[in-house]
Amino acid sequence: MTERPDTYVDARMRVRYAETDQMGVAYYSNYLVWFEVGRTEYCRARGFAYSDLEEDNETFLPVVEANCRYLKPLLYDREFVVRTRVKTFRRRFLAFTYEVFSADLETLHAEGETKHVFTGPDGRPKSLPEEFHRFLQ
Amino acid sequence: MTERPDTYVDARMRVRYAETDQMGVAYYSNYLVWFEVGRTEYCRARGFAYSDLEEDNETFLPVVEANCRYLKPLLYDREFVVRTRVKTFRRRFLAFTYEVFSADLETLHAEGETKHVFTGPDGRPKSLPEEFHRFLQ
Amino acid sequence: MTERPDTYVDARMRVRYAETDQMGVAYYSNYLVWFEVGRTEYCRARGFAYSDLEEDNETFLPVVEANCRYLKPLLYDREFVVRTRVKTFRRRFLAFTYEVFSADLETLHAEGETKHVFTGPDGRPKSLPEEFHRFLQ
Amino acid sequence: MTERPDTYVDARMRVRYAETDQMGVAYYSNYLVWFEVGRTEYCRARGFAYSDLEEDNETFLPVVEANCRYLKPLLYDREFVVRTRVKTFRRRFLAFTYEVFSADLETLHAEGETKHVFTGPDGRPKSLPEEFHRFLQ
Repeated sequence: MTERPDTYVDARMRVRYAETDQMGVAYYSNYLVWFEVGRTEYCRARGFAYSDLEEDNETFLPVVEANCRYLKPLLYDREFVVRTRVKTFRRRFLAFTYEVFSADLETLHAEGETKHVFTGPDGRPKSLPEEFHRFLQ
Repeated sequence: MTERPDTYVDARMRVRYAETDQMGVAYYSNYLVWFEVGRTEYCRARGFAYSDLEEDNETFLPVVEANCRYLKPLLYDREFVVRTRVKTFRRRFLAFTYEVFSADLETLHAEGETKHVFTGPDGRPKSLPEEFHRFLQ
Repeated sequence: MTERPDTYVDARMRVRYAETDQMGVAYYSNYLVWFEVGRTEYCRARGFAYSDLEEDNETFLPVVEANCRYLKPLLYDREFVVRTRVKTFRRRFLAFTYEVFSADLETLHAEGETKHVFTGPDGRPKSLPEEFHRFLQ
Repeated sequence: MTERPDTYVDARMRVRYAETDQMGVAYYSNYLVWFEVGRTEYCRARGFAYSDLEEDNETFLPVVEANCRYLKPLLYDREFVVRTRVKTFRRRFLAFTYEVFSADLETLHAEGETKHVFTGPDGRPKSLPEEFHRFLQ
């Protein structure tokens, strides 16, 4: 059985010169930045802007845990794809998984996961407003 | 006539691996980050925290212009000094200059300038609260 | 007389969450990173990859001067365009100008310039290999 | 039984404005940058420079896995301590753990781990040169 195509969202990017280090490859913390771009595009593809969640609903999504496994370095100017999925969605908790593929989707360069809670602007946990539930289920 | 020693403030840092690029030197945008560390340390040495300006006085200091001349690259783990001065201070305007020296102060690696206006949280120009004037004069 | 359309190259991006700061806008050093993306896309649109210049011709293009004027802040997730032009091209020197526009090209958010020299891997000045001249003229 | 004081190395830093995001706290990928500063200072305190490992011994230490748990946000200009330990050291493998404390060491803000292999400049695994073993044991 194949995966339903709508369970992931792909974001395409290129490695910036700023993101390389003197080892000649993309520096490891940038993958977490790319994961965040993946999350943003995931939300957009699901029909809402994460920025609206913050601005209109005073709901934030801080990261409580992140991890990444680095399988094959990415070089400057290489196009790549961040494939983002929701792994777990509960009223107060959200987990995403990510795969970083080469542009042709043949090579897996890295994979990772982030865990989040929903909070108010004061940083205290809250539930995701009901109107957003349908986007993440 | 020598410069009065209190006209500048020095901040010491080391080049982080994250700040290098595949050319093997510190990537050029990082100098602007270091300038900002220089500004922060300038304020602290003058007796106030820039964070207090933002938090307690709702006064922000966005950059309206920045420039940097790159004279000699900085390598990973090299210690360096950012020497910060106030060039111009007016009620609604502030300009800093920066020199980036080697740790022994013998070599000038870069020099630059940033220009700022004071604004409220809405981004509109305002005057610097009187109580801060003495710190910058 | 209108500008010939081929004198500039546009690169579209969105402001990443990582690029915002606590003032709620894109942090000022990121514009230099975006300028670099503009340069990379300029080269690609002209028919060559900057990475080939480095890898196959051992020619590098370090920045010797950069400046940026910040006119209107860019917010998280906002799409924008970096419009890149070659201002000056000589055998050993290259200058680019940049304009950062809103996605609809109606608002100018920032403008800047970078100056570069061509060097070998040892950092010493050299001339751009002849075969690349036609791309930049 | 208390831990031998030499089993960890502390690196003190402050949160840079560049490292904050529009949530008003340090952006999550920066912790991985701070871990790297922790590794660099760990090596220095043990008697060798990581840069020498790269330059003189053509030995690199790419990250193969990283994770971080975020317990309490860090704010702009807050001083903090990255406490770094070697968790596992084998001829071809190295794992570090990190704790990010408040300046007074009272509050744990984050904790994480990175796993590394030793490679040559070609990216192929190799053993750490013997002369460095004593530094990490």
